[in-house]
Amino acid sequence: MAMAQPSKDSSAITAALILIGNELLSGRTQDANLSHLAQRLGEVGISLVEARVIPDIEETIIATVNELRKRVSYVFTTGGIGPTHDDITAECVAKAFNVPLIRHPEAKRRLIDYFETRGVEVNEARLRMANTPEGAELIANQISVAPGFYIDNVYVMAGVPKVMRVMVEEILPRLEHGAPITSATVVCDLPEGTVAMGLREIQLKYTDLSIGSYPGRANTGYQVSLVVRGADSEQVSAAAVDIGSLVQELGGRVEQS
Amino acid sequence: MAMAQPSKDSSAITAALILIGNELLSGRTQDANLSHLAQRLGEVGISLVEARVIPDIEETIIATVNELRKRVSYVFTTGGIGPTHDDITAECVAKAFNVPLIRHPEAKRRLIDYFETRGVEVNEARLRMANTPEGAELIANQISVAPGFYIDNVYVMAGVPKVMRVMVEEILPRLEHGAPITSATVVCDLPEGTVAMGLREIQLKYTDLSIGSYPGRANTGYQVSLVVRGADSEQVSAAAVDIGSLVQELGGRVEQS
Repeated sequence: MAMAQPSKDSSAITAALILIGNELLSGRTQDANLSHLAQRLGEVGISLVEARVIPDIEETIIATVNELRKRVSYVFTTGGIGPTHDDITAECVAKAFNVPLIRHPEAKRRLIDYFETRGVEVNEARLRMANTPEGAELIANQISVAPGFYIDNVYVMAGVPKVMRVMVEEILPRLEHGAPITSATVVCDLPEGTVAMGLREIQLKYTDLSIGSYPGRANTGYQVSLVVRGADSEQVSAAAVDIGSLVQELGGRVEQS
Repeated sequence: MAMAQPSKDSSAITAALILIGNELLSGRTQDANLSHLAQRLGEVGISLVEARVIPDIEETIIATVNELRKRVSYVFTTGGIGPTHDDITAECVAKAFNVPLIRHPEAKRRLIDYFETRGVEVNEARLRMANTPEGAELIANQISVAPGFYIDNVYVMAGVPKVMRVMVEEILPRLEHGAPITSATVVCDLPEGTVAMGLREIQLKYTDLSIGSYPGRANTGYQVSLVVRGADSEQVSAAAVDIGSLVQELGGRVEQS
């Protein structure tokens, strides 16, 4: 599917991600979905402005969905769409939109087809994975069939990273987006405290860009990544050149990154 | 330092984590702090109920701190306390509490001492790391000296994982806490859809526990982790025994985990 044409300044198209699951808040599971979605959204020109990690608690899920869907262009959720009792995302999103939870006929058909082909028992727990809010459209799952869905601007995806990633690719072509967000990184051997003042001045010069400073690990001495991000790639390049000059003026060395 | 005595049911002592930094929302940096803090809080009997990832934007930081500090026992933040222009956590927390930002005399002393010993120039950017809200107490940093701080129930830590971890250990003994949250995991070779109905009944039997089902990766066939968590370790064990029996009744095999 071709991407829709960029229609607005990318800063105007915003997204939030809700990571749903007790396992993320107990430390059992290390999230891998936030950074992936963040990168893919940036590449297509959508700005991820917030992520929340919340437990499998109905009132919390409903309140978080309703708060964020009014505030950003697109809300994504991951987790809570499997067959077990702790998978409650579909019913919570239905309640958030104040619509009935239905058994989606096409989702049910896909699941039964999949189970029967594999000789897997079709039971009520498995069919729960066909439940969606009334009016929702399906998001195909090329890995394990059980679909995600979207309703209005809320996109409900699986928590398993491999499945989440194919769902992201299903969704992205449908979204309104701005210019891709580009970045340039200048890695140098100066400590942050040495570049800080000059870097602030460069940030003040390029008000449409976001400039960040991230200390990294070097075996010997300092290593700092100075990262410029923005929708205007020429400005991003110009700011990176200014940062490179600053590093050299201060007696530092710019490393290839 | 000895831990304070458990004083309440651990579910009553709650925490939220605010992860501050554009790099987390661009996908440049993969967070490693949430799962660590989650585990350490669980071990000492504090329940992490929410985490938020937010950008380096003043109004967002202030609003998030003020919303969460009223709702949970303890708020933790990571990120934004370095020397560069994008490090704005200290001034935002001061504004959230409506108190002046000061240069903390003890923090300044520690920093100057550290820089002079190493022959590092003492400049205004570096001294910004001594800024705290008025009335804040310092959190020692055994790695790179620049301290965190706390004011009321808000604990401000570094974003660099190594530094964040030593700050967590500085903070934990000071916190009120409940009984440690214990967990038991039953790993089995049945698909989630097969155990789902029986697992739901076990969850209904143990209403004080949280039971989760997490499909994992096995080279051949299914592998699902069924995880019981709660403050009452005897109940946790009893529920795990029930889950093991369920798996065997359904013809599955319980793996050692």
